[in-house]
Amino acid sequence: VSVTVAVDANGADLGPAEVLAGAVRAVEADPDLSVLLFAPAVESGHDRVRVVDAPVSVAKEPDPAAAVRRFKDASIVRAWAAVAAGDADALVSGGSTGAALAAGLFGVKRARGVHRPALAMRIPAPQTPFLLLDAGANTTVRAEHLVQFAHMGAAFARVALGIPAPRVALLSNGTEPGKGTEEVVAAHAALRDMPGFVGNVEGFTVSSGEADVVVTDGFTGNVMVKTMEGSSRAVLEAVRAAATSSARAKAGGLLLKPALGGLRAALDPELAGGAYLLGLRGLGVVPHGSFTRRGFAAAIALAARGVREDVAGSTHAALASAGALRRAPDPSAGAGTLPDR
Amino acid sequence: VSVTVAVDANGADLGPAEVLAGAVRAVEADPDLSVLLFAPAVESGHDRVRVVDAPVSVAKEPDPAAAVRRFKDASIVRAWAAVAAGDADALVSGGSTGAALAAGLFGVKRARGVHRPALAMRIPAPQTPFLLLDAGANTTVRAEHLVQFAHMGAAFARVALGIPAPRVALLSNGTEPGKGTEEVVAAHAALRDMPGFVGNVEGFTVSSGEADVVVTDGFTGNVMVKTMEGSSRAVLEAVRAAATSSARAKAGGLLLKPALGGLRAALDPELAGGAYLLGLRGLGVVPHGSFTRRGFAAAIALAARGVREDVAGSTHAALASAGALRRAPDPSAGAGTLPDR
Repeated sequence: VSVTVAVDANGADLGPAEVLAGAVRAVEADPDLSVLLFAPAVESGHDRVRVVDAPVSVAKEPDPAAAVRRFKDASIVRAWAAVAAGDADALVSGGSTGAALAAGLFGVKRARGVHRPALAMRIPAPQTPFLLLDAGANTTVRAEHLVQFAHMGAAFARVALGIPAPRVALLSNGTEPGKGTEEVVAAHAALRDMPGFVGNVEGFTVSSGEADVVVTDGFTGNVMVKTMEGSSRAVLEAVRAAATSSARAKAGGLLLKPALGGLRAALDPELAGGAYLLGLRGLGVVPHGSFTRRGFAAAIALAARGVREDVAGSTHAALASAGALRRAPDPSAGAGTLPDR
Repeated sequence: VSVTVAVDANGADLGPAEVLAGAVRAVEADPDLSVLLFAPAVESGHDRVRVVDAPVSVAKEPDPAAAVRRFKDASIVRAWAAVAAGDADALVSGGSTGAALAAGLFGVKRARGVHRPALAMRIPAPQTPFLLLDAGANTTVRAEHLVQFAHMGAAFARVALGIPAPRVALLSNGTEPGKGTEEVVAAHAALRDMPGFVGNVEGFTVSSGEADVVVTDGFTGNVMVKTMEGSSRAVLEAVRAAATSSARAKAGGLLLKPALGGLRAALDPELAGGAYLLGLRGLGVVPHGSFTRRGFAAAIALAARGVREDVAGSTHAALASAGALRRAPDPSAGAGTLPDR
């Protein structure tokens, strides 16, 4: 299926040219893929990467919700508008999560019955990958948001990861039902009868593989994802240092190198491409701002895969059939209300 | 200097006999160390490990604050009472952090001018160790608690870790001053002029080494510590798996094994012994409940070292001279008020 991805190139740490290089790499790898790149004047290097001149960036604005309303010509606003108009099938953001979320709520609106969109990230734990949400969209949440994230994650795991009966857990500071913040304790009580709910897990879950979906607020989720990346990097660097600490170790390191290459690739956050922004009437992918062209290419490929697998639509349908959509309009969460940064 | 450590043997996952074995190991390694072990009837195997019959445990009580008031003969209450009476110089808890904290507040009281005690844990990041607090004592905190943790951590780093000018950071979901929960943003503003304050750090800090002291609430801190342990374990296991994936890799693994042994030991949470409970009128050490005798021996040694270095007294004195003690009595944080679990 032919897919067009709208890419906001502003806000990336290495600049729009790096995002462009990623877009070219992505379309070169996929003959049915096109990119609409919203960026300050750059030359496209490929006929399936169309550059739309969009120099205004709100990626560094401290209040993204206000900024996207004020700067209608901001690249992230225009990129979401392309999705809303049907000119693109999904969005990849080069800038901040806050701006991508605010502009998405503004441009394509939240999906019917969804309290809060969430960042769903497949965590490449070596033996036991799992889906973490919210990986950073909502700094603070209420219990009912966590409950819906649990259903949203389960639905996504079924339709996009092919796990027929996903085990869903709440992240907490202890496994007992009474452990955690007020919100976690209340969400635990509300989820007790959800099919597949396995209770609370702790940070150890990254190596224990006890859950397929781990649910938390966006503050804790963001800290967890970055802690995993930092720890993996630190240990791999220490292994590398150990492998040069003596002639004997050096010889061992050389012999082991090919086998370790696969591990390094499996843990590489750039190859994972980032996280899906679920719960909007359009699919978004949020990569790290620090990615190189490799990571942006992976993010664009992730967005294309999400379109082909109808991740947004199928997740929403699964949410509906699980009865996990908000029933009555929630006055505190109308379509125009923006979540916390 | 001769030191006596009160040890609560109840609540450990492997049972009181494992804690006893750890106590015997600790005193065998330190001729000036004695242990008072509060446990259900077990036979001591060493003349410097005196077992006090204390079969009542509140380690699994869902409300530790209520439990320690109700069960005055609980082992953790009696162990803290030994510290309060001067029969022991510090405490090691085998059970839950919540019970150790609640019984400490009840038995030895919080130190003058301290809002909330906190768990301060030295994180054995391979290249860049740092102090994390709160590692799990207070599930929710107010901004002024985070501010005092920052000063408490800086004082501890100076007196106990020998870092003359520690760099202190707040853990958040972004480095900008406006990023984070309401409490983190307010604490950031209050800390702006603190000497050594370097702003917000993200979860990546475990490999970047940009701070000596990382301050957070006990929920996030607990998740972070366990995520680091889980990630390190997962990566080391994957390295081990890679080193048996082919004949060539096996040969390399054998050559590399001695060099990797040091890394494995450096990352071993049992060898670190656990975390100091700071901010009480007596020093506590909280190991993992899952530790074996090796970990409990390390925890008892950590407590003895803390007594010899006067960690509690020096940290408090440094807090006072930094002007970071609560000035007027805070009606919402009186000596009888217990923090959240």
